[in-house]
Amino acid sequence: MNKNRLEAFSDGVIAIIITIMVLELKVPHGQDLATLKPLLPVFLSYILSFVYLAIYWNNHHHMLHASHKVTGPILWANLHLLFWLSLIPFTTGWMGENHFSEWPTALYGVVLLMAAIAYFILQGRIIASQGKDSLLRRAVGKDWKGKLSPVLYLLAIFVAFGSHWASKAIYVLVALMWLVPDRRIERALARTEA
Amino acid sequence: MNKNRLEAFSDGVIAIIITIMVLELKVPHGQDLATLKPLLPVFLSYILSFVYLAIYWNNHHHMLHASHKVTGPILWANLHLLFWLSLIPFTTGWMGENHFSEWPTALYGVVLLMAAIAYFILQGRIIASQGKDSLLRRAVGKDWKGKLSPVLYLLAIFVAFGSHWASKAIYVLVALMWLVPDRRIERALARTEA
Amino acid sequence: MNKNRLEAFSDGVIAIIITIMVLELKVPHGQDLATLKPLLPVFLSYILSFVYLAIYWNNHHHMLHASHKVTGPILWANLHLLFWLSLIPFTTGWMGENHFSEWPTALYGVVLLMAAIAYFILQGRIIASQGKDSLLRRAVGKDWKGKLSPVLYLLAIFVAFGSHWASKAIYVLVALMWLVPDRRIERALARTEA
Amino acid sequence: MNKNRLEAFSDGVIAIIITIMVLELKVPHGQDLATLKPLLPVFLSYILSFVYLAIYWNNHHHMLHASHKVTGPILWANLHLLFWLSLIPFTTGWMGENHFSEWPTALYGVVLLMAAIAYFILQGRIIASQGKDSLLRRAVGKDWKGKLSPVLYLLAIFVAFGSHWASKAIYVLVALMWLVPDRRIERALARTEA
Repeated sequence: MNKNRLEAFSDGVIAIIITIMVLELKVPHGQDLATLKPLLPVFLSYILSFVYLAIYWNNHHHMLHASHKVTGPILWANLHLLFWLSLIPFTTGWMGENHFSEWPTALYGVVLLMAAIAYFILQGRIIASQGKDSLLRRAVGKDWKGKLSPVLYLLAIFVAFGSHWASKAIYVLVALMWLVPDRRIERALARTEA
Repeated sequence: MNKNRLEAFSDGVIAIIITIMVLELKVPHGQDLATLKPLLPVFLSYILSFVYLAIYWNNHHHMLHASHKVTGPILWANLHLLFWLSLIPFTTGWMGENHFSEWPTALYGVVLLMAAIAYFILQGRIIASQGKDSLLRRAVGKDWKGKLSPVLYLLAIFVAFGSHWASKAIYVLVALMWLVPDRRIERALARTEA
Repeated sequence: MNKNRLEAFSDGVIAIIITIMVLELKVPHGQDLATLKPLLPVFLSYILSFVYLAIYWNNHHHMLHASHKVTGPILWANLHLLFWLSLIPFTTGWMGENHFSEWPTALYGVVLLMAAIAYFILQGRIIASQGKDSLLRRAVGKDWKGKLSPVLYLLAIFVAFGSHWASKAIYVLVALMWLVPDRRIERALARTEA
Repeated sequence: MNKNRLEAFSDGVIAIIITIMVLELKVPHGQDLATLKPLLPVFLSYILSFVYLAIYWNNHHHMLHASHKVTGPILWANLHLLFWLSLIPFTTGWMGENHFSEWPTALYGVVLLMAAIAYFILQGRIIASQGKDSLLRRAVGKDWKGKLSPVLYLLAIFVAFGSHWASKAIYVLVALMWLVPDRRIERALARTEA
């Protein structure tokens, strides 16, 4: 199994997920600006999920860049990650349509949590395949972002039943935390090549 | 005709099929957890079909990895396989929506059966193109999984009219049987390179 | 402009068109075999269009394989072809839903006719870019299939208002005519390499 | 981060956007030519947006062809552009369905304006990454098209509230302006290689 095809397939699936989400923005039948108003929360949810999927695509690249061979466990861990990402359009749509309620907000977090765990498993499988001297292990280091995110998602899920706004604020916060570019892998690669 | 483009096109189609299926998970209009309940069978069907498509993508890769040239018959056998795979979102949606009934459960099996036959034909066309010394023929060996699956699908189709649960259990069983990694092709390749 | 990216983009668009068509096969709400009956003409239209798109993808490959550089006119001629192909899911759906009527059957032919003309223009642009000694010109030769198809589509469009069945028979006939593998380009390439 | 994967991902997203738009052309339930009549404005909007997306795809290629490395800011500027392009199916559908009204026509221009700005930012990020001697900077030159387009979109947005036809004429005009092939980058590349 060739790394390029794993990358290409993952790119394809993520590109489709990111684009299919826009279909939840149903074209309204009216023609005034007012008919767009109920779409606003759907639109904001779309932006948030777009950013999350962009972050996953970006980090996925960096991670695979630091890996060389694709084993069976890596392949299935990758498909497991794509499975959870593929549910994001659904949870985005549900949260967008019912923006003042707890359950959709909590479920949005559950899928993010499962995707984060899937990403963590995939990372572990790649590190395991690289043995003691794993480039990825050094690159990832203490991985505080990777460890903090699931905790924050879990918090957001519980907080949703108190205040769904607080919960949404946490989702935005985690996204911003990841938007800050993660240079660990690039740095480790640069060090190795030097 | 270049092998890479056949792989890329097949990857594209499978990536779209696997992602488009999620559109059958229609966003519910309510906001309670209870409104998700009718979606549960659709969701479970989605997981099953996701796994089947992932297995096909995976095996398709290994098979093409062991083939060198793309002839006209290989090309059309491949398109024939993609045709049956493209019907999986439909049968998944129908089974998910009518989870207690026989016909949708049986039809789900019919499409799996046709896809398995299409895969078998494609495999045969590649082996034929490789002549007597076919690497793929040696890799596939007795191919008990490839021969047993259609029999089990056929069984599941008939069993559906007695107990659709038994039928679904067979689908899960076949998926699990394939999930166990198939190292035949990798081994044959390794032997050749050694 | 690099040939690979033109090929990859065209592959992507054709892969999406071929898969999106299946969304016209709307999951029925009933659970008997009888609820599938109204879907039969949609399904048959889907098969026909799947075959047409597969033929286009296949011939498109062979044609680009025989071309070397991508000029501006080739690029836009290619996008023009993709435009008409992108309308096939619509005409397929309309013909499938109104299978006993003339207009949908005729419109199906109009889009096929426009796609055939667009293909012809693209072929002309590639030949023009290759100058007097064009490999593609020699490969295409008298191009009787390419010249006969638009005539048959035109016939089918007019015949539709007399008998939509005769019209559909012509569409099937043209597809079969193209399914017979077209070895002209392969042969011309082989001759050049020899 | 490798340039090829950025190109491939962008190609994938644009290919999906361009194809998904066709889903707004909902298959009508009637069978006369008259049932297509209400679809005509949707169809014309589809053509316009198809051309815009084709222009973006084309220019995006030329621009990336003139760039060598992909930095973090380039990556996010590219995702920002894809975000605005992904909204085109929505604004196309809304304008198509409400073709005699101002708001949909104006919003169509807003998304085009934002996409043009995003393209401008991406271009700036690439030029910045190339330093003083930027190939792209020389290629782009005075960039009068890139500077004129946002002004025209802005004009079209305001004009929409007076005459939505005038506004639509401006959109067509800008598209035609870009359709004239832009040889600046090709020329600059040719000069460099000479």
